[in-house]
Amino acid sequence: MYSLVIAEAAMELVPRILGNHPSVRNHCKRTGRSINEIFLDVSYHHKAMVEKNIDQWWKRGRPDIVHFDLVEALSTPLFKQKKLQVYVSTFDNNLVTISQDLRIPKNYSRFEGLMIGIFNKQKSKNSPNLIEFQENVSFNDLMEKIVKPDLVIGFSVEGTRSKISDILRNNVTDTAKHYCFVVGGFQRGHFSDTVTAACDTIYSISPFSLESHVVISRILYESENYIQ
Amino acid sequence: MYSLVIAEAAMELVPRILGNHPSVRNHCKRTGRSINEIFLDVSYHHKAMVEKNIDQWWKRGRPDIVHFDLVEALSTPLFKQKKLQVYVSTFDNNLVTISQDLRIPKNYSRFEGLMIGIFNKQKSKNSPNLIEFQENVSFNDLMEKIVKPDLVIGFSVEGTRSKISDILRNNVTDTAKHYCFVVGGFQRGHFSDTVTAACDTIYSISPFSLESHVVISRILYESENYIQ
Repeated sequence: MYSLVIAEAAMELVPRILGNHPSVRNHCKRTGRSINEIFLDVSYHHKAMVEKNIDQWWKRGRPDIVHFDLVEALSTPLFKQKKLQVYVSTFDNNLVTISQDLRIPKNYSRFEGLMIGIFNKQKSKNSPNLIEFQENVSFNDLMEKIVKPDLVIGFSVEGTRSKISDILRNNVTDTAKHYCFVVGGFQRGHFSDTVTAACDTIYSISPFSLESHVVISRILYESENYIQ
Repeated sequence: MYSLVIAEAAMELVPRILGNHPSVRNHCKRTGRSINEIFLDVSYHHKAMVEKNIDQWWKRGRPDIVHFDLVEALSTPLFKQKKLQVYVSTFDNNLVTISQDLRIPKNYSRFEGLMIGIFNKQKSKNSPNLIEFQENVSFNDLMEKIVKPDLVIGFSVEGTRSKISDILRNNVTDTAKHYCFVVGGFQRGHFSDTVTAACDTIYSISPFSLESHVVISRILYESENYIQ
């Protein structure tokens, strides 16, 4: 069995401290939404994030990355055959658990609307119980109490360079076991010390710095080939 | 050398005939944009498309698919190493030629804004000459006068079932030659007779009906492996 965790995912509601910044106020006004109804998004709130100097701002405010990552993972035959469990663990320790029956909206606005509701703990009419939201779940708690994998394989440009087929051959040695892939759901920077420590092994699959959705598509495709 | 053509791509400005439909008028009003400034989008204009019974409506109005396809292709090392030329050939015979230096907006709204400008023949301030737009370029003209490949390999669920690595081994036999991959940029249905006839060979790479961005990620990844 396989799990995929999108770790330190750059998806969060706008932090209160930015609520009065003009770039946030203008975005709320333009979209007719309150501050609870928009995700922090560097595409609109860059100035607020930098001027207020929020912690590690360069790893935050990219809900579009999480959207791409989820569409990528949920479009694979591996997921559609219910051989993959997907989790989003956010920068600020919220956990989104994706049901194996979820059909993710491809349209970004619809995805954002769905997720905003989830983050505000509203039950979705369209997807009841297909997405679960939990607050204050640390990465360690996620691994030890929820995913409970036999092996945690992280992917990062700082990992050991290896071909995916070799990574699978060397690590996925018992199909009865549970293997968890961890990919960072952010634009820049590396895994935190916590995530790094929780991985049994970390690999780099390319001499290039790949975007997370590319890493996800490649490891899931090779996993499909490997288990066939 | 490789080219990728996203064929019969479901990206077009709202057809005039739908301009007075309430679902289109409401969308214009809500977004504060004129009918020339929004793409046909089944997510918003489904009712108009069905009620006005526009030709093959089920293959149209999915600019988000084109966005995913482009992000997928342009995020690959193959593209970044300038070994891949990318074209979008739309349902209604518009041609979008992507420069090998383009950095595509990941944020859908920014992508839409960029493309809307291109479709209205405005020069983009951010991406001068990085996207070229031409009207009335048929798929045959694109192949014969612009791409001019040595071999055209189409991918469709109706093609001959084969593994991608085998497809490459059996077809990509001379690295000095120019190979063109064709993937449909629409949600449902199959290649038109024109596109089918223009392909030298058509393959299916999975027993499942894969979304076009999944097909693109897989063939480009295997092509990278193949030419290494």
